[in-house]
Order: sequence, then structure tokens, then C-alpha cells
Amino acid sequence: MKNICLLGATGSIGQSTLDIIKTNPDKYCLKAFSFCHNINKAKEIIKEFSPEFVSSPISEHIENLKKEFLNISFSVDINDVAVYECDNPYVINALVGSAGLVPTIKTIEAGRDVLLANKESLVMAGELVMKKAMDMNVKIIPIDSEHSAIFQLLNNQNHKDINKIIITASGGALFNKALDELKYVTKEIALNHPTWKMGAKITIDSATMVNKAFEVIEAYHLFNLKTEQIDTIIHPESIIHSMVEFNDYSIFAQMGVSDMRIPIQYALNYPNHLDNLVSKPLDLSDLTLHFKPMDKVRFEIMDKVWEVLKKGKFYPVVFNASNEVLVDLFLKEKITFDKIVEGIINEINRTEELYGDLPYNLESILEVDRLVKERLSK
Amino acid sequence: MKNICLLGATGSIGQSTLDIIKTNPDKYCLKAFSFCHNINKAKEIIKEFSPEFVSSPISEHIENLKKEFLNISFSVDINDVAVYECDNPYVINALVGSAGLVPTIKTIEAGRDVLLANKESLVMAGELVMKKAMDMNVKIIPIDSEHSAIFQLLNNQNHKDINKIIITASGGALFNKALDELKYVTKEIALNHPTWKMGAKITIDSATMVNKAFEVIEAYHLFNLKTEQIDTIIHPESIIHSMVEFNDYSIFAQMGVSDMRIPIQYALNYPNHLDNLVSKPLDLSDLTLHFKPMDKVRFEIMDKVWEVLKKGKFYPVVFNASNEVLVDLFLKEKITFDKIVEGIINEINRTEELYGDLPYNLESILEVDRLVKERLSK
Repeated sequence: MKNICLLGATGSIGQSTLDIIKTNPDKYCLKAFSFCHNINKAKEIIKEFSPEFVSSPISEHIENLKKEFLNISFSVDINDVAVYECDNPYVINALVGSAGLVPTIKTIEAGRDVLLANKESLVMAGELVMKKAMDMNVKIIPIDSEHSAIFQLLNNQNHKDINKIIITASGGALFNKALDELKYVTKEIALNHPTWKMGAKITIDSATMVNKAFEVIEAYHLFNLKTEQIDTIIHPESIIHSMVEFNDYSIFAQMGVSDMRIPIQYALNYPNHLDNLVSKPLDLSDLTLHFKPMDKVRFEIMDKVWEVLKKGKFYPVVFNASNEVLVDLFLKEKITFDKIVEGIINEINRTEELYGDLPYNLESILEVDRLVKERLSK
Repeated sequence: MKNICLLGATGSIGQSTLDIIKTNPDKYCLKAFSFCHNINKAKEIIKEFSPEFVSSPISEHIENLKKEFLNISFSVDINDVAVYECDNPYVINALVGSAGLVPTIKTIEAGRDVLLANKESLVMAGELVMKKAMDMNVKIIPIDSEHSAIFQLLNNQNHKDINKIIITASGGALFNKALDELKYVTKEIALNHPTWKMGAKITIDSATMVNKAFEVIEAYHLFNLKTEQIDTIIHPESIIHSMVEFNDYSIFAQMGVSDMRIPIQYALNYPNHLDNLVSKPLDLSDLTLHFKPMDKVRFEIMDKVWEVLKKGKFYPVVFNASNEVLVDLFLKEKITFDKIVEGIINEINRTEELYGDLPYNLESILEVDRLVKERLSK
């Protein structure tokens, strides 16, 4: 039995994980989970899965649950989920945004593999996270569909044989809109992703192409690549989730339906591709797959990301933090869509000036994250 | 230094192999080769590569060469190439048709891996060949682009995790012709393959879809699969060379330009994907890939092949032998195109009646091959 400690149970990845647990009760058991706002969903999960431990950073929610569920332990520190004591623990980090970083680190420090859907952990602190994982001899198993694709394809392949990886991008909800139309894009339009049903934040990140820029940074750390070994391509159908080109020009691609339960299940059973009781196979008949070059003028952040990656240190921290605030402001209809990337690039350009003197460590990363958010929220 | 013993040096795969040797003189050396008819090309190869040993079944050619090249050893038994004594030998079987079977067996019996482009070895005697390879603890490394694709993708993957393999087919030169048009197809039209430049026989085999039926049989033996684990699909661009679907519905695909030097080089360096100095990378930008279901009415042999596979024994031998004769008759303009598959199916249907009493062994396989060819050549 694999005992699941699930960080972020009420979000999109959390729900997909619960689907898998529910359909395979002989294989998986939900031992502990965290949530943030959605207490109603949390109650449903408790009733359905009877976990031993539940955590939320909102103490009011915890007080409320304590009264209703007497046999369960609770905590307001979600890190307790990552380190929850049980046999054969599988920690899934399905948190959204910078909140995922510290739980990732706590999981590694507990000597546990991280089944990682929270890409921000690697965007903000990829160097620290990967170094710590190596020191602790634990694996970071990606759940992001693109990185799971590459991780699956590279399993047991010789790292020296990689020429480059090619991350596919659907293009997001606004692929066919011109740059000067972006200021008129409403929340509803931007949230209508063509191929994947996901949470609001990542759907906006897809529309701005920030998500793909994050994935470039994530891949750089996860697969220990040089910047010139990372390429991106537009593939509107999202059927090929990513590719690896080897030095002999043989390309491997991983394909499938747009269903996050496939990479989650792979992460839970790595390196095996066990029977899948929840997903559908891809129907290849009468399929057409298109590829277009990434347009770095239209998607300016895909040009900027290489500077962020090369300068490193606090640059990706500022990138991530400014994006989080600006997406939130857009979703609250306080800024227009075009101001998201514009605002991010302005902030990135001030990184050296504002944070250049800080020592590079976890505390400073969290401090820069806080400072950027504070500045932009004003 | 890898010393190459090349069976079939003057054919298409042979020439691609020589390209690789020529471009990588520090890695590969041509030690021995065989040819059949093309003595002029054989002389060029001798002059350029200075091999130690040359063989041709045509004694006249050998007598001719003996006079011109005094420092080289010769033989009229091409099996001598497969077992030619040298350090670190790499035997490539690039022969066409049933002539490849015995050299494959001799290579295995010499305890050498077989780098196999001659699919007929596995079509005619897959069970015997694979059993002998297992007994001798040698590997059969496929060079056929589809099987190389699957072989590459399955490297180190768990065999239990395979749901099915999906062999891609371009559709060949006559994909858009209706069944009743086939009798009017000329040699020139049938030899005009849309995506691969290959020898005449395999190009006709592509047009009849016999080549794909052979590949189904080849894959069955090579990858130790059940018949229901083998699927085929039309993919006109020949960019994806084949796919593997795992039990979790994750699909791996291997892609690249249509260049046989990629699978040949992989076979020579298995399991590594070394730098490729001869091929071009695939340009993914503005690429479109199409897939269509295999039409088993239009391509009747793709229906019949499952019966051949299930009945086994002499059925695939009859299939291969009748095809060889009938393709030859078509190329000599003695029969119309539609008579190739019609003739094959007629012969397959008489297998039990004509050869059912023979004991199943290598001698009988060669005898059935001879008998079918004799019958049909009359």
C-alpha cells in the first residue's frame, strides 16, 4: 500500500490524485492532506477518504473541522503533511505558487522523494532544491505533463546522449490574438484554455506563455541541462507533451490524452507504467498534429526567460513573485491582460538594483518573494 | 575500432552503412563484405575501403576480382562474411529477401549479435531465429526504421508495461489508388515511394503493404508480443517511425527524418545515441503530421497477416517466398500489380495442403521457400 501525503488536495491536481486513489483502493491510501480556502471540499474529502491528518494555514478552518471530525489530527502548518509519519509515504506537492517551495524543501529534508506538480519550487529555487535532493539522495519526480514526458523518455537513457529537449506549448487561450488586442482580453476569454482544464492561475499563465517560461526554468534544473539544450515549440493539440532529441537526431516524443492523471499515476509508480483504470487511451485514428515555431515577439516572456535563466539567483524569484501578484490583480479585474507580462518584465529589470546585495539562500529567496509581492500589491 | 562485416554492401542499406564508415574512419572499419550482381560497385568499395575479405555467390565475379585485387581474400559463400574472424566484429545483415536467413543463423551460431536489416530472416523463421539468439545469448538489433524505433523506445522499459506497439505505415506509392485501379499501375508509378528512397523490392512491398505485414510478423518475434499487442496506422509523412503504448496509456513515439543512417548508427552504438555526422536533424517548425486508420479492405494483406501469424510455421515462409517471386515477375512486367497480393493470398491458402506434412525445422523452411518459388516461376 502506498500512503499518500497530498499537499493541495482541493485544487485541480489534488482532485485528479484523489480520483486515482478512489479507483485503486487496493494500491493507494490518503493518509494526510492540506487545503487552503475550500473547506467544503475538504470536508467531502475527509468523509470519503478518512485520512489520519489534515492541515490548512487558515486556523479558522482547522477549528471548524476539529469540532466535526474527532478522530483526525489537525495542524495549521502544511509542512506537517509533507513529513507526516507513516509507512511507505508518497508526498505529492500539488500546491499553487510560491507556497509550494518550503513544503518541497521539508519533504526533501525528511529524506522523501517529491512528486512535484508545484513548478514554482523549481522556478524560485531550482538550484537549492536540486542540490538538497542530491545531498539527501531523494528524487524529484515531476508531475507537470511536459516534464513528466521528458522524465519518462529519459528514464535510463544516457544523459550525455541528449542533444536538446523540446517542450511543447499549446499556445494557450489567446494564441490567435495579436499583441495590440491583449488589453481588451477579458478574464472569461483568458480562462478558456483550448486543450487542458486546469486551475485559474495556471490557465492565465498559459495565456501569457509565462507557464512555458517557467517550464523552461523547471526543465533546466530538473534535467541538469545547458540553456542551449532547451527548446520550445507551439503544438496546438497538446497531444505530444514534450520531446527529447538525442545526438544522433533520433527524437523521442511522449504522447497521450490531456489528462493529468497519467503523469500523476506515473509519478506514483515510477519507473513503471502500470494499468490505468481512470484515463482513456489516445485515439490516433484521423488525428492531425501541428507544430509552429515559438514566436518570441508575440510572446515576449519567451525571449526574456533566457536572461532570467542565465542571470539566475533572484531573477527567477522576481519573475515568479511578480507573476503571482499580477495574475491575481488581473483575475480581480484590477489590471488589463497586457499589463501582466509588461509588469513582470519591469520587475525583472529591477532585480539587480533592488535585491542584488542580498546573500543567496532560502531566507533571501522567501524575502525577495515577499518584497516583490508587497511592492506590486500597493 | 568497430570492425564491420557487411552482408549486402551494394544495396541501399549497404550504401548507407558505407556512408557512416566513411564519415567516421576513427570509429568504424570495413573488414569484410558481400555483394551479388553489382561488381562495378563492389570494385569501388574495395578501392575506397580496402577490406580484407570479399564474397559473392557469383563465382565469375569472384574470379574476376581475384585477378585485380591480389591482397584480398575471396569466397563464394557469403556466410563467410558473417563469421569472418576479426577483433570486435559488427555483423550487419543488409541482404534482400530469403537469401538473408542462413547468414543470420550463421551469425548467431558464431555467437555474434546480428544488426538486422533483412526482415525476411524474422518473417521466414522468427521463432527459430529468436530461440537460437536466446540460446547463444546474442542480441538481434533491428535496423528497419520501424523496429529500430520500437527497440530504441523499449530500451530498459519493463516488458510487462507494454500495452501495444503501433507500427506506422506511409501508405506507399499507391495509397490514393482504389483497388480496381491497381491492375493499371506501371512499374514506374509503383517504384515512386512518397517518403523513403529504397531498393526496388522493398518499394514495391510498400506499395502492396506487404512490407507492413512483414513488419507485423517481424515485430511479433523481435519484441515477444501477443498478436493483439500489435497495431498499425497510416502516417503519410513517415516522420514518426513507430510508437509504443504502455498500460497507463502513455505513448512513446520515435521520430526523425527519413534517413536509414540513423537506425544503422544506433544499431552500431546501441544503447547509445552518439553524435551523428551524416544525417540532418528533423525540422519541427511548421510540421503537420497526419494519421489514418489502416484500411484492411483496400490493403487485404493487412487482414490476411493475422491468419499467417496465428497459424505460423510454414505460413509466413509461403507468404515471403510467393511475394519474392511475384514482385520479381511484376518488375519484369510479366504480371500486373494487382496480381501480386492476389497471388500471395492464393499461395497462403494452399500452405496446409502442400506443406502441412513437413517437419518444422530450418531445412523444411528452406525447402518450402524453394518449392513455392519453383511453383510460381513456372
